[in-house]
Amino acid sequence: MRALVYHGPAQISWDTVPDPVVEEATDAIVRVDATTICGSDLRILRGDLPEVKPGTVLGHEAVGEVVEVGDEVRHLRPGDQVIVSSVSACGDCRACRDAMYGQCGGGGGWILGSLINGAQAEFVRVPFADHSTTRRPSDLPLDDAVLLAELLPTAYEVGVRNGHVCPGDIVVVVGAGPVGLATVIVARLYSPRRVIVVDLAGPRLENAVRVGADAAESPGAMIAELAEGPGADVAIEASGDPDGFVLCTRAVRAGGHVANIGAQGGPVTLHLESLWRKNLTISTGQVDTSSTAWLLELMRFGRLPVSGLVTHTFGLDRMEDAYEVFAGGTASGALKVVLRGE
Amino acid sequence: MRALVYHGPAQISWDTVPDPVVEEATDAIVRVDATTICGSDLRILRGDLPEVKPGTVLGHEAVGEVVEVGDEVRHLRPGDQVIVSSVSACGDCRACRDAMYGQCGGGGGWILGSLINGAQAEFVRVPFADHSTTRRPSDLPLDDAVLLAELLPTAYEVGVRNGHVCPGDIVVVVGAGPVGLATVIVARLYSPRRVIVVDLAGPRLENAVRVGADAAESPGAMIAELAEGPGADVAIEASGDPDGFVLCTRAVRAGGHVANIGAQGGPVTLHLESLWRKNLTISTGQVDTSSTAWLLELMRFGRLPVSGLVTHTFGLDRMEDAYEVFAGGTASGALKVVLRGE
Repeated sequence: MRALVYHGPAQISWDTVPDPVVEEATDAIVRVDATTICGSDLRILRGDLPEVKPGTVLGHEAVGEVVEVGDEVRHLRPGDQVIVSSVSACGDCRACRDAMYGQCGGGGGWILGSLINGAQAEFVRVPFADHSTTRRPSDLPLDDAVLLAELLPTAYEVGVRNGHVCPGDIVVVVGAGPVGLATVIVARLYSPRRVIVVDLAGPRLENAVRVGADAAESPGAMIAELAEGPGADVAIEASGDPDGFVLCTRAVRAGGHVANIGAQGGPVTLHLESLWRKNLTISTGQVDTSSTAWLLELMRFGRLPVSGLVTHTFGLDRMEDAYEVFAGGTASGALKVVLRGE
Repeated sequence: MRALVYHGPAQISWDTVPDPVVEEATDAIVRVDATTICGSDLRILRGDLPEVKPGTVLGHEAVGEVVEVGDEVRHLRPGDQVIVSSVSACGDCRACRDAMYGQCGGGGGWILGSLINGAQAEFVRVPFADHSTTRRPSDLPLDDAVLLAELLPTAYEVGVRNGHVCPGDIVVVVGAGPVGLATVIVARLYSPRRVIVVDLAGPRLENAVRVGADAAESPGAMIAELAEGPGADVAIEASGDPDGFVLCTRAVRAGGHVANIGAQGGPVTLHLESLWRKNLTISTGQVDTSSTAWLLELMRFGRLPVSGLVTHTFGLDRMEDAYEVFAGGTASGALKVVLRGE
């Protein structure tokens, strides 16, 4: 089959590789009908994740059709339409029983497209397939469904839920990339008073208003606006930038929440000399994809207007072009790129 | 009257000063029967809190008898025995209505012995007296009652409650000073599996075991012990040291809580490059003393064995000696020093 192979920092190519096969009795093989590229794929390309070895097929978000299942797969059969979650979960370990699938100690967690071959390919081997897939209803478009593989669960679980967004809240979202904007869409479910998106890049700010932010501002404008009141109730870091984290801790009111989504490459500064008495709650987290089925229902009933999140679509064989467009998103305003199979 | 006056960094003396008088209709004047010294008094002496001006009477924890009340004080009369909370609360502002008295926007918060004259004196003016005092039952000893003015509410509200200590938890407390040890005593109410106290100072570690810690260790020993399992469920920072905070974030398991009590003098490092995916919840906070009445009941019914926390008692006029003993606590193992009126 054809697949996007990582050959080391800044080196990827659309190669011919062996088809994946069932290796464990709990595996399924899925034909990829849609996949996408994530910020963490770009981190791999930058060499930030040395655990990803050259030769690995990248990608951890997919929608497709089951073509083969191992002997112990109970709930899937060839022909089933599924969303493949970025997180594989054994379902049995202590972390999984506590719904912390991202912390799976039984061989799962985020392994797809990092420790094992991933989903930017014509076919993908899905470990623990019963627990790592969600049925896709036939009326759910591929482009929407693929956002449930990781993006929307991340925005909800790590951003909105960890940040305890409540009706009437002022919510600041730092970073107007796909994760930040997905966070805006999910936060709207909780009737916030005002959602302010902060970014340095103009084209991204325009996207923010398009998906439903009340304001899209520079960091300085946001701080000046909030200085007129007690501050934001919730600040959600979705930029992955150390300054973005500090900005969140400045924006939030005493008693507020800072939810960190961004995968930071280095330490950040926590100004405890002033924050120690600010009654802050700061959360970090890796997505568990425990909310996928719930978000899918919300999407089907029209509560998650996600169409603005996909700005580009390509055929699967244009994967290298898609990486280029996605990597240039800060300047161009490109958000999610979806790659569709034949 | 006589009072402990701050004259600038490292300068205090037991001086004759004017008696306090009712300045606002919501004030009460309390005769101090017991007071104590807090780590934040030492921070003032180090010059870390420049908002405290020379000439201020220090001290923010007291037990005593009401001798005079302003016209608008509704619930107190001369002769009443009270605990004076470190936090004064207007009771009416938005923060107070949300029980965040430490963040009072109506002129309260921690002002006693910092922005106004305090309780290390023969008499103290208590602002918002109805809301800033708690009745002392006659069977509650002075030495126990004074611990309810700030120490125990801090340990509970900022440490144990913010840290979500639950039955069966492994709890790490960093810093074996009075706040850390009070945290051990309060944490025990929740039936943790194991409470490990960490400190660099030997005499302090001995105190930790005496008040009920299961283990008192060096940082290295604690990390080695926890490496055999997933880590601590809760880590509580009670040292005020930047390294103590980092140690907490290392000790805690994925999905665990870090509760910061310590008043840090500068920024700390938050290692988000590894912690972003660890599902941590980090809380900061200044005490609200909203729990004083509840802790008082627990104390009366024998659930808070606090006697080990007071290591020295003095007459009020030996305030300067008491500061010396308290400041040397890291080396000597001295914990709370209580000063009693005539």
